[in-house]
Amino acid sequence: MTDPRSDLSPQASHPTAELCAFLSTLEFSDLPDEVVARTEELFLDWVASALAAKGAHPIPVFERYASKMGPSDGPCTVLVNRTRTSPYFAAFVNGASSHLVEQDDLHNSSVLHPATVVFPAVFAAAQDLGKSGADLLLASAAGYEAGVRIGEFMGRSHYKVFHTTGTVGTLAAAVGVAKLLGLDADTMLHAVGSAGTQASGLWEFLRDAADSKQLHTAKAAADGLLAAYMAADGLTGARRILDGEKGMAAGMSTDADPAFLTDRLGTRWALLETSFKFHASCRHTHPAADALHVLMQREGLRHEDIGAITAKVHQAAIDVLGGVTTPTTVHQAKFSMGTVLGLIAVHGDASIAGVEAHALTDPRVSALREKVQMVLDPEVDAAYPKRWLGRIELDTQDGRHFSCAVDAPKGDPDNTLTRPELEDKFRRLTQFSKATDDTEATELISRVWSLRDRASVTGLFDKVAR
Amino acid sequence: MTDPRSDLSPQASHPTAELCAFLSTLEFSDLPDEVVARTEELFLDWVASALAAKGAHPIPVFERYASKMGPSDGPCTVLVNRTRTSPYFAAFVNGASSHLVEQDDLHNSSVLHPATVVFPAVFAAAQDLGKSGADLLLASAAGYEAGVRIGEFMGRSHYKVFHTTGTVGTLAAAVGVAKLLGLDADTMLHAVGSAGTQASGLWEFLRDAADSKQLHTAKAAADGLLAAYMAADGLTGARRILDGEKGMAAGMSTDADPAFLTDRLGTRWALLETSFKFHASCRHTHPAADALHVLMQREGLRHEDIGAITAKVHQAAIDVLGGVTTPTTVHQAKFSMGTVLGLIAVHGDASIAGVEAHALTDPRVSALREKVQMVLDPEVDAAYPKRWLGRIELDTQDGRHFSCAVDAPKGDPDNTLTRPELEDKFRRLTQFSKATDDTEATELISRVWSLRDRASVTGLFDKVAR
Repeated sequence: MTDPRSDLSPQASHPTAELCAFLSTLEFSDLPDEVVARTEELFLDWVASALAAKGAHPIPVFERYASKMGPSDGPCTVLVNRTRTSPYFAAFVNGASSHLVEQDDLHNSSVLHPATVVFPAVFAAAQDLGKSGADLLLASAAGYEAGVRIGEFMGRSHYKVFHTTGTVGTLAAAVGVAKLLGLDADTMLHAVGSAGTQASGLWEFLRDAADSKQLHTAKAAADGLLAAYMAADGLTGARRILDGEKGMAAGMSTDADPAFLTDRLGTRWALLETSFKFHASCRHTHPAADALHVLMQREGLRHEDIGAITAKVHQAAIDVLGGVTTPTTVHQAKFSMGTVLGLIAVHGDASIAGVEAHALTDPRVSALREKVQMVLDPEVDAAYPKRWLGRIELDTQDGRHFSCAVDAPKGDPDNTLTRPELEDKFRRLTQFSKATDDTEATELISRVWSLRDRASVTGLFDKVAR
Repeated sequence: MTDPRSDLSPQASHPTAELCAFLSTLEFSDLPDEVVARTEELFLDWVASALAAKGAHPIPVFERYASKMGPSDGPCTVLVNRTRTSPYFAAFVNGASSHLVEQDDLHNSSVLHPATVVFPAVFAAAQDLGKSGADLLLASAAGYEAGVRIGEFMGRSHYKVFHTTGTVGTLAAAVGVAKLLGLDADTMLHAVGSAGTQASGLWEFLRDAADSKQLHTAKAAADGLLAAYMAADGLTGARRILDGEKGMAAGMSTDADPAFLTDRLGTRWALLETSFKFHASCRHTHPAADALHVLMQREGLRHEDIGAITAKVHQAAIDVLGGVTTPTTVHQAKFSMGTVLGLIAVHGDASIAGVEAHALTDPRVSALREKVQMVLDPEVDAAYPKRWLGRIELDTQDGRHFSCAVDAPKGDPDNTLTRPELEDKFRRLTQFSKATDDTEATELISRVWSLRDRASVTGLFDKVAR
């Protein structure tokens, strides 16, 4: 009788082992300059998102939980309150914080928000271990490369029910922390196994506007860190947690493709494909929002002119946004296509301050919301998830008809944000929540732009003297 | 357009809401005496399993992780080392410990091991909150009633890939802790939502004999506790996390049946259906082990007489045990049908000390292992998971043929362990690991037998003065 474990020996090659072999031996000098620079930019953008959540529900619930269950001091920074705690709880609170205001980055084809799961874990571990800025950047890049490929592997069927950033995010965080811990390929594989068997996060919360989205990212970051630290201390995990017959794909996907796991390792830098978010809403609303903005500018339209808007979208947009018709919370408004297009039409943007001020209370926005419908478009759906196309049809009150197409929404790799735009976004987000003043924002930005040269990240967010 | 959230209002009735309404108003005086007594017995049995793991890999990895990430003191006892920490980390280490030696209880039809997920969470919270023994017993019963019904709801398809004790255990733990926190029905529903969206645990680890089984129970207990504490502090969760269109059943089951969730609430006490484990091996080996034991006694057979053994089993036994042919660790040996039947045949039992001493090293056991095969039996499979039937066919070396059928394996509700038998098991397990001596065992047993009268459980496991 053939032993079914025979192909599971450490020596046997399979895609997850190959991925770990590549990432565990990756060195800082292997990273192209462009990757290093973009990682710094993604890190700054992550810090902005985390600080923007200061004081907003449910983040204080996470802070209080960490205080109650964790130690009262430690090597790692909780960004929203600048206290220190253990790596697990810093990753936990920072993971929750950076996914609240819907401004954190997104990788299109994997539908993964990498920053909010990778950076909280890697930054906490780097502070704990006294690592350098270059170590932090390398480990973060490893987490991105793993997370994107695993997200692509899990496929569209997974994303229909599971919040990929919660599930796959656990593995991305584990790989980043494993890299900082210096784990060899086989030990990293154990970390991935322990991360995958903890992977969770269901979309069901969206219909009730419940607080689970932040719980998912908090847990993904913290549990991924747990998996790596415990692997370093000898906890073993399933080697084929991804493609094994009782692994993640077997349980949670119907269209998984192992070829993605090792896609162009060393030549494709998936991190560079990550999009920055410009609007403060669910990324599925962005292509249509940009197309509407372009159209209104081009035709000189005012919101009063609009009779009806059709957003032609991919199926996942309907899956995620379709349940939200009349939002009852600011967070839910970010998942309402009608509200987001209403904000664009009436106020010209869907910024963090604009959503907060107008999404639920401006009757002109509500009126526009009722004029918006989403329809599935075959061309848009076929391009997804690799490309997120914006297609708008608009009828005016006086009977005119317009169309507009945008192929690369603002913030996409082909239409990315510049460093000055990212600095501006950092200031807007951190001042929105009063987490920094302008002087401190300037100092923090300058620290991040010199991250690759920093000898230790332990004091990176120490308060700036005033 | 109909708002799809309309049936999700707090007022709308659905099975999970009904379950929470029943459990949140359940009082100690509602519990039949038999339920109270059995809960004490299950609790003692749980403590025995936890203490039996003292010093055994991977439990020290969990202890060190809790020390590093958690506080250095707190209200809650870590059983294996009698240190104190916060509720989260006590639940974490105790949840890992009590599922290691494969002696913890099992509910047949849900295929859930309730003790190892419910008691770590409930005991930690009860110590934290200074609750009484009666409070602890009531909350534990609530956790069992919820866990069993949710396990049954998730169905056999779930158990094929997912370790139900890890997934459903998270919700059972959350309900128990919610009960101690005094949450009302709607807040308990939020706790269940936050627990369900964290539910995880895949069987893939079993093929490489990895350490994930203890990680699953550690996380289920700790994450369930997290869900309840955070719900008490205002974190909301999906109300239909079980049967919603993007909930647990949608993502992780193909045969879920909501009728189980409210099955005979208040008249059926599922806790009473829980089996104690007699053999120190996977429960799927027990029916055949008992049948072999009975057969050998009845016919006066010696192990040298045996030519071949056929264990006629249900499909889940093949799913869980089929991957293990030649075990390489003691833990894996507990999942090897051939090894367990070999131990019964050669040594007359598969006790914790016997498995440790003989499973991997006794050539007579190895020789027997090669003579055992499992075959799917339609009658056994049809009865499962409600009843776990033992059916053995045995051919002797000299050409005789015997059959034996056992309908209620030792420890099943119809063939349960008495208090003296449980006391004996407690002594065997705790002395195996040198966690207690006989004097302390006697004292701890007596404390548990008076649990219902104890004013506070905070000092329940304080060291006994010698």
